[in-house]
Amino acid sequence: MTTSLAAVFTSPGAPLEMQSFPLPTLIGSEALVKIECATICGSDLHSYFGRRHTPIPGILGHEMVGEIVAAGPDGASDYHGVPLVIGDHVTWSMVWSCGKCFYCSRGLRSKCEKLMKFGHEPITPGRELLGGMAEHCYLPEGTAIFRVPKNLPHQVASPANCATATVAAVYRNAGPVAGETVVVHGAGMLGVTACAMAASGGAARVIVIEPDARRRQMALRFGADVAIDSTKDAQVIAAEVKSLTEGRGADVGLEFAGYPESIELGISLLRMGGRFVMAGATFPSRFVQLDGEQLVRRMIRITGVYNYIPEDLEAALEFLSRTVDKFPYTELVGAIFPLRSVNMAIAFAESERPPRVALVP
Amino acid sequence: MTTSLAAVFTSPGAPLEMQSFPLPTLIGSEALVKIECATICGSDLHSYFGRRHTPIPGILGHEMVGEIVAAGPDGASDYHGVPLVIGDHVTWSMVWSCGKCFYCSRGLRSKCEKLMKFGHEPITPGRELLGGMAEHCYLPEGTAIFRVPKNLPHQVASPANCATATVAAVYRNAGPVAGETVVVHGAGMLGVTACAMAASGGAARVIVIEPDARRRQMALRFGADVAIDSTKDAQVIAAEVKSLTEGRGADVGLEFAGYPESIELGISLLRMGGRFVMAGATFPSRFVQLDGEQLVRRMIRITGVYNYIPEDLEAALEFLSRTVDKFPYTELVGAIFPLRSVNMAIAFAESERPPRVALVP
Repeated sequence: MTTSLAAVFTSPGAPLEMQSFPLPTLIGSEALVKIECATICGSDLHSYFGRRHTPIPGILGHEMVGEIVAAGPDGASDYHGVPLVIGDHVTWSMVWSCGKCFYCSRGLRSKCEKLMKFGHEPITPGRELLGGMAEHCYLPEGTAIFRVPKNLPHQVASPANCATATVAAVYRNAGPVAGETVVVHGAGMLGVTACAMAASGGAARVIVIEPDARRRQMALRFGADVAIDSTKDAQVIAAEVKSLTEGRGADVGLEFAGYPESIELGISLLRMGGRFVMAGATFPSRFVQLDGEQLVRRMIRITGVYNYIPEDLEAALEFLSRTVDKFPYTELVGAIFPLRSVNMAIAFAESERPPRVALVP
Repeated sequence: MTTSLAAVFTSPGAPLEMQSFPLPTLIGSEALVKIECATICGSDLHSYFGRRHTPIPGILGHEMVGEIVAAGPDGASDYHGVPLVIGDHVTWSMVWSCGKCFYCSRGLRSKCEKLMKFGHEPITPGRELLGGMAEHCYLPEGTAIFRVPKNLPHQVASPANCATATVAAVYRNAGPVAGETVVVHGAGMLGVTACAMAASGGAARVIVIEPDARRRQMALRFGADVAIDSTKDAQVIAAEVKSLTEGRGADVGLEFAGYPESIELGISLLRMGGRFVMAGATFPSRFVQLDGEQLVRRMIRITGVYNYIPEDLEAALEFLSRTVDKFPYTELVGAIFPLRSVNMAIAFAESERPPRVALVP
């Protein structure tokens, strides 16, 4: 095989076009992966429908797993420098980072000055295959590659390099939650993953706050102990959380919904010294209104998290592997479509809104 | 001597009344200190003028140093359990905490469920002498006592247990600043101390932002490299900070002014991944307006700090001892009054607004 089929994004809302591209000539330690499964992330839908800027023409999709089918003359290696061989099943950081710049050297690889993001790059000669909605993906030298644990089905492993790794980054910033009360705002893909991670991290109590009843039910199956309807009055929600925490409030709040109301509510639900990690607010909104005196007197810590570092992806894979029999991960994928039916898959994802839809070449 | 003179706060704005109290009968490991110097903190003025609630009648003053003159039958010890002897020069945490409750066991001793604060307690029989505006101070069992380094003049050591220790708590939350650009908002007692701590902590650049020209000058003598007038347009200030940081913004912002405008400006001046620690907002204000999307995409961390833990006081004393010849600490005390002239001292502190005014019995 010398070519790869790929679904090309040419214009917001226009059907993706199936095109063939030559497989790249690999140099150094570059690698080529045959994609086994790609999942459609919410941000792919935002890109597709023009709700966020994405270069054109390009290949969407950044959540994926695949099999190493070729490597450059130096051979490919995983993130820790362990050689990879043909046939290894891998995933990789959706963010390519140089590891050396100002931000990379300060633990902020997702803000690398030379950043490249799979599924967000324009097609250029020799670098066409950088998205998940294709038969193959090209991994430039320096891509942070990890082996996929053998006990993970493709559609469970595929979201690891966006959803699960981001949740791992959120927990790295929140700190250990063993014995604590964790409130999770929003029960989409990230929210339910956060519930599962809190429960398996030994949280004393996991409370999820979400408007959609079906999603609340899903969260309860992913380790949440209590699910509260976010459309309730804020004071009612606060009373409920206080009654569950001896009147103190939550130790930790994790925000995946992204709305100012959710952020304001979340911070108000914290106990003295509580930690709030925000990952949902990735779209324009009105300002969040916070009482500075309360932040100081209540000693609140707020951290914004965007994307992740390679170690988070490693933690995500380890977490999924450890808990794959404990939570119903496969149910998060609402449907599996062949790559050629990608336009139908996108329409289904947009209208039915399951946490994920999978594509298999 | 069997009695101690003290200035009693009976009503906001009314002259403090000099009264005599019997010295307490010490039990266990309690201690009695003869006060050598007390400094008047901004919050003492807020209490005195009724701008904040303080129990009545009480003895104000929580920044002080003194000499151990008596101990209970078990003998007194410092925070590390090292025995103290009569004649030892000490200071102690302005917050008494139990060390065992929910908050104490989570590193939040300033939120202790049994909290007692020197200078903020009502006078009750046997527990009269709990403030700095007196000849003696009674140290209940469990008070976190530290020896004052011998090279520190009284008026330099006295602010340690409020101003300097709070700044140490701010830096504990900010993390190491070596090689970084630190922006300090507000150049009062805490702000100039923060400048000195940044400079001696190896910060690459210390920028202070403050409206008062005299205070800006003071900050420059305490290690600030650049002083910016905070009444300038926010965009002008932002351009200035950017030009000093290769266009990236500051690594760390430390907020001691407390106004929403200062907090909003401070967060906007941070680089990607910047840390903001707030300690100034201890009074009611309008809401702080923050762009949630920016907090997430720029990966900002915001931490509120109120008071401190005993280890911060220890760090404060160590810091002052190490840098006492490097910065003009004695100039921070605008005047020294005898205890009997406490009402004049308060009037001077309120009208002249030097960083501190000292009282000596």
